[in-house]
Amino acid sequence: MSVVRHESHGILSKVVEGGGLVFTAGVTPDNRDQDVTGQTRDVLAEIDRALALAGTDKSKILSATIWVPEIRLRDGVNVAWNEWTGGENLPARACVEARLASPEILVEIAVVAVK
Amino acid sequence: MSVVRHESHGILSKVVEGGGLVFTAGVTPDNRDQDVTGQTRDVLAEIDRALALAGTDKSKILSATIWVPEIRLRDGVNVAWNEWTGGENLPARACVEARLASPEILVEIAVVAVK
Amino acid sequence: MSVVRHESHGILSKVVEGGGLVFTAGVTPDNRDQDVTGQTRDVLAEIDRALALAGTDKSKILSATIWVPEIRLRDGVNVAWNEWTGGENLPARACVEARLASPEILVEIAVVAVK
Repeated sequence: MSVVRHESHGILSKVVEGGGLVFTAGVTPDNRDQDVTGQTRDVLAEIDRALALAGTDKSKILSATIWVPEIRLRDGVNVAWNEWTGGENLPARACVEARLASPEILVEIAVVAVK
Repeated sequence: MSVVRHESHGILSKVVEGGGLVFTAGVTPDNRDQDVTGQTRDVLAEIDRALALAGTDKSKILSATIWVPEIRLRDGVNVAWNEWTGGENLPARACVEARLASPEILVEIAVVAVK
Repeated sequence: MSVVRHESHGILSKVVEGGGLVFTAGVTPDNRDQDVTGQTRDVLAEIDRALALAGTDKSKILSATIWVPEIRLRDGVNVAWNEWTGGENLPARACVEARLASPEILVEIAVVAVK
C-alpha cells in the first residue's frame, strides 16, 4: 500500500497519507508570543493547511489529540477549538497535559482524518 | 470517504467511524469517587458502550492509549484491564503519565478498533 | 474485518494488524543501562522487528508518537532517530514529555504503519 508524504524534511513529515487515512504531525504554533487561544487558532489554521495538502479537510477528521503544558490551559484551547469546529463534524478527542518542545509552546495538536 | 459520528455534542464526539476504523474519544469516568481500579472498570464499560454504538466491540481493538496522572496508578489500571481483556484479543497498548482534565480523574483511555 | 495480533501475552500485543493498518505497542528498551540515544537505538530496532512480524517495515510508517520523561531528552532521541530514518520516508511525528513505566526508561515510541 503506498504512502504519500507532504512537507517532509528534517525529522518528520507534516502530513502523511496511507491506507485511506491522513495523519498530521503534532502541530505547534510558529508565533509563540500569544496566549493559548491565539496559539491554538494558529495551530488549527496550520492543521487546515496540512489537511489540504493531503486533499482532505476538517470535516473528515476522525480523531484529535491535544497536549497542553498545564491542564488549566484547556479552557483557552477550547475557545479556539469551538470557533474552529462551529460545533459541527466533531472529532473524537483527547486532551492531556504534557510538557512540549519548548516552554513557550502552550498547545500541540495532531489529527487523523480520512481522505 | 464518509465519516459517521456518535454522541456528538459540545467539544467532541464519543466515537467516530471512517475508513473502516473506529476511534473513541479519551474516555474518563463519570463516578470519580472510586479508586483507580473502579474508575478503570467504568471507563472500560463506557468504551464497550461506545464501540457498540459504532457496531464493533472489544475483540476488534487494534490499539489503546492509557493516561494516568501518576504512573504508579498503572498497577491499579491493570487489575481492571486484565478482568476486561480476559487475556484475549490484546490490543497494542501504551500507558503513560499525564495530568488529566481534573485531579479526581485517575485514568483516561482512548482506543482504535476496526468495524 | 479481521484482526491479527503478534506476540500477544500479558497485558498487550506487541503489534496488531487490521483495516490495512499496523499498530505497534508503545515500545520501551530492554537494556536501560544506556543513555537516551542508546535506548532509542534499541527501541527503533525493536520497532523494525515488530513491523516485520506484521509484514511491513519502516518505509511504510504513517505516524510515530514519542514520549520522553524529560523533554530535554528529545535531542538525544533525535540522534538515533536521524540515523534510523536516514532522512527518508519521514513519518508524521509528535514528541511530548510523559513519565513512563519506570524511571530508568528514557524513551517510549509507538508507530502506525500500512502493510
